Amino acid sequence: MITGKNFLGSELSAKGNKTYKTFNPQLNIENNSVFYEANEEEVNQAVQMASKAFQTYKDFSGNKRAHFLRLIGNEIEELGDELIKMYCTESGLPEGRALGERGRTIGQLNSFANLLEKGDWVDAVIDTANPERIPAPKEDIRRMNKPIGPVVVFGASNFPLAFSTAGGDTASALAAGCPVIVKSHPMHAGTSELVASAIISAAKKSNIPNGVFSHLNSSGFEVGQALVSHPLVKAVGFTGSYAGGKALFDLASKRPDPIPVFAEMGSVNPVIVLPSSLKAKSHLWAKAYANSIALGAGQFCTNPGLILALENENLNDFCSELSIQMNEIQASCMLHPNIEMKFSKDRNAMLKESHVKPLYQAPDQKNTNFARQTIATVKGQDFLHNKNLHHEVFGPFSMVVRCESEAVLISILKVLEGQLTGTILADEAELSSNHEIISLLSDKVGRIIFNSVPTGVEVCHAMVHGGPFPATTDGRFTSVGTSAIQRWVRPVCYQNWPNNLLPDELKNENPLGIYRVVNNSLTSSKI
Amino acid sequence: MITGKNFLGSELSAKGNKTYKTFNPQLNIENNSVFYEANEEEVNQAVQMASKAFQTYKDFSGNKRAHFLRLIGNEIEELGDELIKMYCTESGLPEGRALGERGRTIGQLNSFANLLEKGDWVDAVIDTANPERIPAPKEDIRRMNKPIGPVVVFGASNFPLAFSTAGGDTASALAAGCPVIVKSHPMHAGTSELVASAIISAAKKSNIPNGVFSHLNSSGFEVGQALVSHPLVKAVGFTGSYAGGKALFDLASKRPDPIPVFAEMGSVNPVIVLPSSLKAKSHLWAKAYANSIALGAGQFCTNPGLILALENENLNDFCSELSIQMNEIQASCMLHPNIEMKFSKDRNAMLKESHVKPLYQAPDQKNTNFARQTIATVKGQDFLHNKNLHHEVFGPFSMVVRCESEAVLISILKVLEGQLTGTILADEAELSSNHEIISLLSDKVGRIIFNSVPTGVEVCHAMVHGGPFPATTDGRFTSVGTSAIQRWVRPVCYQNWPNNLLPDELKNENPLGIYRVVNNSLTSSKI
Repeated sequence: MITGKNFLGSELSAKGNKTYKTFNPQLNIENNSVFYEANEEEVNQAVQMASKAFQTYKDFSGNKRAHFLRLIGNEIEELGDELIKMYCTESGLPEGRALGERGRTIGQLNSFANLLEKGDWVDAVIDTANPERIPAPKEDIRRMNKPIGPVVVFGASNFPLAFSTAGGDTASALAAGCPVIVKSHPMHAGTSELVASAIISAAKKSNIPNGVFSHLNSSGFEVGQALVSHPLVKAVGFTGSYAGGKALFDLASKRPDPIPVFAEMGSVNPVIVLPSSLKAKSHLWAKAYANSIALGAGQFCTNPGLILALENENLNDFCSELSIQMNEIQASCMLHPNIEMKFSKDRNAMLKESHVKPLYQAPDQKNTNFARQTIATVKGQDFLHNKNLHHEVFGPFSMVVRCESEAVLISILKVLEGQLTGTILADEAELSSNHEIISLLSDKVGRIIFNSVPTGVEVCHAMVHGGPFPATTDGRFTSVGTSAIQRWVRPVCYQNWPNNLLPDELKNENPLGIYRVVNNSLTSSKI
Repeated sequence: MITGKNFLGSELSAKGNKTYKTFNPQLNIENNSVFYEANEEEVNQAVQMASKAFQTYKDFSGNKRAHFLRLIGNEIEELGDELIKMYCTESGLPEGRALGERGRTIGQLNSFANLLEKGDWVDAVIDTANPERIPAPKEDIRRMNKPIGPVVVFGASNFPLAFSTAGGDTASALAAGCPVIVKSHPMHAGTSELVASAIISAAKKSNIPNGVFSHLNSSGFEVGQALVSHPLVKAVGFTGSYAGGKALFDLASKRPDPIPVFAEMGSVNPVIVLPSSLKAKSHLWAKAYANSIALGAGQFCTNPGLILALENENLNDFCSELSIQMNEIQASCMLHPNIEMKFSKDRNAMLKESHVKPLYQAPDQKNTNFARQTIATVKGQDFLHNKNLHHEVFGPFSMVVRCESEAVLISILKVLEGQLTGTILADEAELSSNHEIISLLSDKVGRIIFNSVPTGVEVCHAMVHGGPFPATTDGRFTSVGTSAIQRWVRPVCYQNWPNNLLPDELKNENPLGIYRVVNNSLTSSKI
């Protein structure tokens, strides 16, 4: 049962006057439930509760926090069909995707639970004392990562589960020991409320302090702005548009005490097709890329929106093959009329830029909110000199750039902005003989891929889902994979501290049996 | 021989019209050498060279970079007496301090060389492929830290060697694989030029690409602002005042592509004296703290500027003992007339704030530029409600706050801003029974110290010389110790990449023999 209310800790609250509903893009109708936008008082209460809860939650052991995360996963599973139906109703995405994303979300929670149980993630470093040192004695110094405080998480439109209420940002922040206040995404407020109820239920069952998790509804900007500006909020996680992410970053930078904003804002994910792949593997790559471009109606931050190839006789074959393959794929429903409208507008604007030609356009769609998947093409020199063509079209759209020479390709790589991913389709000999291209591309991306597609972000330890600005506001961190926890911590150092009063992670006895750097040697032994 | 010119890579350059001289505060006269302020063209040329050099320097092996760092140390040593004399002439600091700081500087360079030779610092993480995984195969994903690009380093006034031209910022950035452009501090431009010449000489001897290091003179703001705004600059290191650091942070945040600024801006470094220490160890701590407050004329970012104690009969003893001990210490020369003037002004302003009383004031100094070391005192409630008293007075000044109750002490801790350090003087029983005080203090600091003084920042692996804003602009990093290298890198992830084309750090064979996390297990074995 959807209440439409906010969770201030475990308490339901609906003090504001503004309400809104979600939308079913497949049926093109509003859904029934009414959601109550959080008001200023509720925002402040949620943050105050988070700040208070932090004082105890920060000292919870890794095992206790792990138990909480696993319980959240169980509680999400327990929501059963109700969650899956709500997800589909609010997103227009198919049931298979809903099930997959739920699995991914629970998997993420469990992967952070494993990380906590293992315990090494705190990066404990110990330099023991040397009282005999000349000219001055050396004191004992020990360091570990500690949580920074209340974190605000913005749900993403395109992943109602895995990048939203209990998604990677929330899971990693709770794992780090930070309370979380979620600003739910207005397009899937019902899905978000269900997941929030699962988190609250898990918190109660595992005796987590009330206020470690709160959930606020919002259809506008005010709630998000109030949260990011609140003096007790210490960091922000966001996945969405450049405009949204950059606005939050600017707001946070202008605070009297600036705080970090980890905004993942998408990119065009350039793909470089070298000649051997055009010649020998046109069909293979055309098919793989048609599927990657159209996957999830193109609504992925890793969607390959830019294909850079050298002009030669095989490029025409690749292009026609790509068109044929795109034509094989049925158009699909976008997340919301507003998203489809923005896609149409941006797609049309791209096609109207000088020298840009359509390579493939799906026919006008009979079904409302379905996307006309599109491939455009342009010459390298024209792309190079028109910055408008470098921007992302969020949806099933890609641009094939026909580079007149390797020099043009290199010039393009030099001016490209920061990206989440960059891909090279080539044979190994070509890869090894194109050092400059690889080197330039790797400076621009968080993840560099050989002979594959950028969509499908593996949740694993080595993953970097991040990249230089404007792909994200902080390319030093990832928002997917276990390293995402590093966003919510800072190192704290203990000098000359009595052993029995140190955190367990730093005690001589190493009661947690974790790996530590002791006097410059990595060891899991006691001291 | 001082030329007064800028180094654009290895080339000396003096294209600008503006010149300036340094000052000898002990003799209260200008020094002879004339320094040529870098102009816009020189700024741009230095950055362009750095950006070009980055393309090769970033791929230099750890061993090669280590060799370069060790050579820099040798070349600094080779400067011999000329450097030590120049240091004293430009800073007014005694020869012993110059020698100590030179040792520290060379030690830092060598500690980063050791780190590079060991190689583990890149945090290599490998998740191998699983082609049989259902429903989709898992591709091979590997990650390591890579340098971010050209870094600008601002020399600090108070450490002409260890936090300046070849100091921790420069050493860590060069270690990471980033070219460095130093904006030298105008108060010790000659010292800076000598050290720059040593770096250039080391670069030549170790075949480091020209442009990996440049050195620009500047007595105003323009050069620094132009550097921080330059599109090819990727990060900034700074140690100095809040006003200076915050201005650079704001400038960098407003760039079209914001870049990180690691500004260490000092703090008041609160010290909490619990009752047992007042009773049993008044003399010990009064002496230790008098020395710590006066050390280096109080010109340290870790200077203990705030002593918080509970009002009781023993506090008077501690205060008189502190006065006696302060009186034993000879006043010393500050770095520059401007610094002494600022100290005098801030000290006088503090003493004029309502309810603040002087506890000890050194007599008026006959020697120009010598500081009147001062201890003030105020009641807890008065301190709590007057934010003016929370600010740093840079120099030999400290404020004893007489807290009327534990509740007042706790209220003060709650409103204190972020700090580099926080110290507790107590016995162990008191430490363990004051959980709330410790917990609040540790949330505000980078380093928490038991029964010691905050001055004397050990260069070691576990050190955190950092802390929440406004102690620094990014409390997630340290500027002292080997972890300082983490400020200049970002993770880059390779997906499905051919083994023989991976960086050595990520190859199956593990040719460097470094520790890596392979499929979630830490190992130095090959795969």
